[in-house]
Parts: sequence; structure tokens; C-alpha cells
Amino acid sequence: MSDFVYHASSTAPVNIATLKYWGKRDKDLNLPTNSSISVTLSQKDLRTLTTASCSSQFTKDTLWLNGSPHSMDTPRTKQCLNDLRTYRKELEASNEKLPKLSEMNLHIVSENNFPTAAGLASSAAGFAALVSAIAKLYELPQSASDLSIIARKGSGSACRSLFGGYVAWEMGSEADGSDSKAVQVATLEHWPDMKAAILVVSDDKKDVPSTSGMQLTVQTSDLFKHRVEEVVPKRFLQMKEAILKKDFETFGELTMKDSNSFHSVCLDSYPPIFYLNDTSKRCIKLVNLLNEAAGKIVAAYTFDAGPNAVIYYLQENEEIVLGLLHKIFGKLQGWENVDTAKLSIIDGFPVNLIDESWSSGVSKVILTEVGDGPLDTDEVLVDLKTGLPKN
Amino acid sequence: MSDFVYHASSTAPVNIATLKYWGKRDKDLNLPTNSSISVTLSQKDLRTLTTASCSSQFTKDTLWLNGSPHSMDTPRTKQCLNDLRTYRKELEASNEKLPKLSEMNLHIVSENNFPTAAGLASSAAGFAALVSAIAKLYELPQSASDLSIIARKGSGSACRSLFGGYVAWEMGSEADGSDSKAVQVATLEHWPDMKAAILVVSDDKKDVPSTSGMQLTVQTSDLFKHRVEEVVPKRFLQMKEAILKKDFETFGELTMKDSNSFHSVCLDSYPPIFYLNDTSKRCIKLVNLLNEAAGKIVAAYTFDAGPNAVIYYLQENEEIVLGLLHKIFGKLQGWENVDTAKLSIIDGFPVNLIDESWSSGVSKVILTEVGDGPLDTDEVLVDLKTGLPKN
Repeated sequence: MSDFVYHASSTAPVNIATLKYWGKRDKDLNLPTNSSISVTLSQKDLRTLTTASCSSQFTKDTLWLNGSPHSMDTPRTKQCLNDLRTYRKELEASNEKLPKLSEMNLHIVSENNFPTAAGLASSAAGFAALVSAIAKLYELPQSASDLSIIARKGSGSACRSLFGGYVAWEMGSEADGSDSKAVQVATLEHWPDMKAAILVVSDDKKDVPSTSGMQLTVQTSDLFKHRVEEVVPKRFLQMKEAILKKDFETFGELTMKDSNSFHSVCLDSYPPIFYLNDTSKRCIKLVNLLNEAAGKIVAAYTFDAGPNAVIYYLQENEEIVLGLLHKIFGKLQGWENVDTAKLSIIDGFPVNLIDESWSSGVSKVILTEVGDGPLDTDEVLVDLKTGLPKN
Repeated sequence: MSDFVYHASSTAPVNIATLKYWGKRDKDLNLPTNSSISVTLSQKDLRTLTTASCSSQFTKDTLWLNGSPHSMDTPRTKQCLNDLRTYRKELEASNEKLPKLSEMNLHIVSENNFPTAAGLASSAAGFAALVSAIAKLYELPQSASDLSIIARKGSGSACRSLFGGYVAWEMGSEADGSDSKAVQVATLEHWPDMKAAILVVSDDKKDVPSTSGMQLTVQTSDLFKHRVEEVVPKRFLQMKEAILKKDFETFGELTMKDSNSFHSVCLDSYPPIFYLNDTSKRCIKLVNLLNEAAGKIVAAYTFDAGPNAVIYYLQENEEIVLGLLHKIFGKLQGWENVDTAKLSIIDGFPVNLIDESWSSGVSKVILTEVGDGPLDTDEVLVDLKTGLPKN
């Protein structure tokens, strides 16, 4: 390949919602029935790295994900590319010297630093990295919120991965989705001591995919409308305020209540949808017992559309939160960077309740924390001679 | 004991709600936050037999339940006895010839024909039999609905066990509970071909008792108010109509939806309450797959405050409903009275999905059907010489 290959790389984070997105008011545009809030997790532990490249020699848009070719011929991906090319065209129209990248095909190479199969919202990081890398390649002047609208069309919750720290996805009201975008509630620096322990739960059954699950809930749950119209709007304001005040007790209580509420409307669907299993339920019980022993909320669980538990806690409570988790899950992978000698079981915890069975069903622990939004990187995953993935 | 021992015996049935009672507006009077509906189950399979006796020689009110003495000194039991004695006093006041039974202490002996531990609403049958036996002993002229108000004070859902067939508990609106009573929606004879298969699920954990669970839901669930104010009142009318029309498809759909809704508000409580476990979820899946294969609703699950599945179906579909259940649970106790040669798996059922694991967690099958309300019996559990239980 003699022709020049334009390229740019970005990384993007996973985010785990503390106020859940569940339900679309427009399926094609991924417009939600309620606003949501999430914490962006550190890319040291969980991130997607994407190189976007284009060249006049490339014959079609192509994506490689973790080494395997993937179709870009899906309506959602096409919508993202189309929006990005439209912005690039505007730039090119305003400055004739710019190369006509919008007319070239794209080769995208993307890699996660965590197993996709773990059910860890990889599509959010994936679409955020895709949009960020192409926006960088195209040198687009658009803001992160503007880009979040594009990422949203790829995968709803991906819009929240365009920011670091604490992020809200404002549902908006326009029919075309032009005001349904992510905004930053608070930066990483505002409240840097938020930690997250992820308990990866093995699941033998295939869950209902979230897109079809959402639609089933919207169509059949009698409680859903009340959740989105009455419960979530209040909780949205309360949670933003708790973040701004760095009030973990309120933040944690709202987080747990919203996870419960989301799984409630899944169960109220017809036929019912279950994402929590008996292992998930033990994780909930564990957090409740810990908070009872502490006499306040020091840990808050939340569950997405799957059985994995994400437990948020503050740095100042790491000793007792990880102390308990290490006692139960200490034999699993994930403790490499923890000084376990410093951990302890909180006084008053009913340790006699805990036996071998409590660790069953959990396959792995991921210890992470609040992190940055998409980052530029010099790493290049595309072989600039062949236009194919390096590995 | 030389003195005369007055005595009378009654049996009373278990009922399993198809529209659930969950939430009290008055804890002392057991006044519910919503009306409910149930099917009374046959006493051939599940019943409490109670002998009520009284004598001037008895020194205090005493209850023996399944051979063990139990305190009658609880506020609920005392309220029941007080109400029944008040009615008896009225009778005695109007007819001087009547013996003053209201002034004598009671010896009550009660036996279930099923294990109490199975979590099968034994308190409903228990209080219904207690009230029926004493009302018979006292020769009270009150109607079954009047007596249901007394049984309700003992255990809310007990009021529905005062009738056979299809029963509604009308929540009422009076502060003293005088209009919160059971009424018969339809007799056993109106729709006699309703069957019920109970899958008794073993549970190692202690559930949240229903009284404290209800209060937690009332106090903490954001979705609960919507359930009782908007969802249940409509469903109550629809379910009564479905029973009157003998429309199993509608009845079954409403039954399943209301079970889902009840467990949703449990999960939406804070901390969340879980009564369904992974075994319960497999039972739900099984019923859904069966209905899909049948192309209509031929079976309807419902779960009370525990993991046991109760599956309602019509006699005309027994071959395919029990065919499937027998394939999975055929090794368990409970098939003694079934001609299993007549059973078959419905065409199109994905039998390949079913493996050994599907029967795990279920300990026993109870096959029963709609049945009568309380019945008089000549059986006497009290030794008339000693005033103590015969056994």
C-alpha cells in the first residue's frame, strides 16, 4: 500500500450507571425514557483502545474487534459513521486545504483490556472509543457532549463514556434526539476517592439482551411508567446533588435503591426478566450486612443487565470493605495490587454467617476506581503499510 | 374430669392467592392496602382439622397444634376469641336456656394433613379452622363473611379460607375493618376443573417473615403505591370477570402478572426482599416454555412469600401440563394418584433445554385442585375425659 494512511488513536472507559437507563422512547435513535447517571471507571483496569484510519486505498469500511473482523454494516454503526463524516464534510467545505477524509473508507481496529464476555458494558467503551478516535482523526471541533450524541446512537450508555468522573445522560425532549446527550456532573478531581469492586459472577444461562429486554419492559410492565415518570426524575436531582456534596451515604442509598428499582421493573415485565441470580443476591446481602455493622452506608451495590455486582465505596473505607471481600473472595484473581495485610473485618460483622458457599458463583474480582474520559494515545493498532491490524 | 365437655370440629382449606395481598393499612386489625383474590384448594390434599372444646373445668385457653402446646396469649388469637365470645354472649343474652359457653375456657386441638414447614400458607387454614370450629361450638348464626372478618384479625389471608371455590377479600374502607371481609366470587361448582400443581422448593435461607416484609415494602418501596392504587384495582375487576367467564387465558395471565408484580415490589423494598430463588425462576421459565409450545396460556404460575411454585391449569390440559412436570419431577413424591401412562409432552416443547439440573431444588410435588370451604366433621381431636389432645 503506497498511499498515505491517516490515523489516530483514542482510549475510552467503561461506565457503570448508578441511576439506570432502562427503556427507549425511540429505538432507532436510542432515546431513553429517563435520564441516567454513571461513574466512569479507570482505564487502567477497563478500557477500549481504538485506532481509526482512512486511506483512499481502502475499499470498504472495516472493523476489527479484539482481532476478529466485525461488520460495520449495522444501522447503528452506519449512523455513527454518517454523523462523523457529516461533521468532517463541514470542515472540509470550510477549508479546501484539508484532505477529503470524509470520502475515504475507514479501517478501525479496537481492543479491550478486559474480557468482553464478562458482561462489563463493553459496548459503551467500544462506541465511545470509536467515536473519539474518528473525531480525532477528522480533527473535529465538536465538544464531548456533541460527540456523546453520536456515541448514543451506537449504544445508548456509550454517551456517558465520553466524560470522566461523574456523568449524567440527560434524556432530552426533542424528537430527533439532538438534546439527548451526556454532560459532566462532576470531574474526577472533584471526588477522586470513589472506588469500585466488581464481582464477576459466572452465569450459565443466556440473559435477555438488554435491547429486547428494555422493549419488553416498556411494553408490558405496569410499574415501569411510574418508575420513569415519578421515581427517577426525583432521584436524578437527588443523586446529582449527592455527588456535588460528596455525600456518599445519600449517593450509596440512591444507587442501591435504583438498582433494586430497575430489577423490579424487569421482574414486572411479562414474561419476567431476571438478571440477578442467587449469587447476586448473596452479594446484596453481604453489602447490607456490612453497612449494618458499620452503622452507616460504606458500600453500595449496583447491578446492570446481568449478575455481576459492582460495589462502590470510598477510599477511607477501603480497609473494611476490601477486608470483608478479601475474606470471602481472597482466593480469586484480582488482589495482585492490594496490600492485604492492611485489610480487616469490621467489628460487629456476623462472620459466623459466612461459609464456603458465599464465594461460590463469583469467578473473579476487579478492583478499580473512578477515572478519566477518553484519552489520546500514540499507540497504533493499524499496520500503516497494510492497513490491517498489527496483531 | 367429671364436668361436661362441649365440643365441635371443623376442617378448613388452604387458599393460594392469584391476586396477592401485600401491605397492611392497619397492622393490628390486619387491614390490607389492596383487595385480593384466591382459589381455595381441596382439603383432600391440604387442610387443617380443628376441634374446639370448652368446659367449666378448663383453667385457661389452650391450643395444641400438631401435638405441641401453643400459646393463645397473642394479641391476634385473643382478638379472635374475644370476637367469637362476644357473638356467643349475644346469643346467651337472648336465650337464657343456653349454656354459658362464653364464660368457659377453650381447649383447641388442631392438626394439619401437610407439613407446616413447607411454607404452604398453613396459618390461613389454621385460623379459618379455629374460627369455624369455635363458631360451630358456639352455634353462631353469623355468615361466612362475618366470620371471615374474625379470621382476618388472626391472619389476613385466613379470611379467604372461609369460602370454597373462588374468593375475593374486599379491602373495605372503614377504620374498624368492619367491611374488610371475604366474599365468594364463584363456587367450586361454577368452575370445578381448576387444578393446581405445587412444586415444593427447598430453601436453606430463612425468608423475611411476611408481616415484617409487608411493612418494609409499604414503608420503602417507591413502586408499591402505584401497584396498590393503580395496578391492583383494575386487575381485581378483570380477574373476577375472568373467573365468572371461566376464561383461563385471562385468569392465567393476570395471575402470573400479579405474582411478578408482588415480587417486584418486594425487590423494590429497601433493603430488597427476595422470595424467588434460582429454582423458582426455572419453574417460571418452564411454564413460559410450555405456554409458548401450546400457543396459549395453559398453565399459570404464582408464588407466595417463599420459593414454592403453585401452577394452576385446567383439567382439559392435564395431559400436557402434568406430562411436562412428570418428565422433570417424576422421581419425586406426589405422583401416587396419577395415571402417568396418559401423560405426554406437548409437541414443539424444546425438550433439549431440559436436563437433570431442572429438577434440582424441588423436593416434592403436591397435585391438587379447587375445593370446598370449611366443612363440619364428626372427628374429635380432644379426649373428652381429660380435655387434652387424643394423640
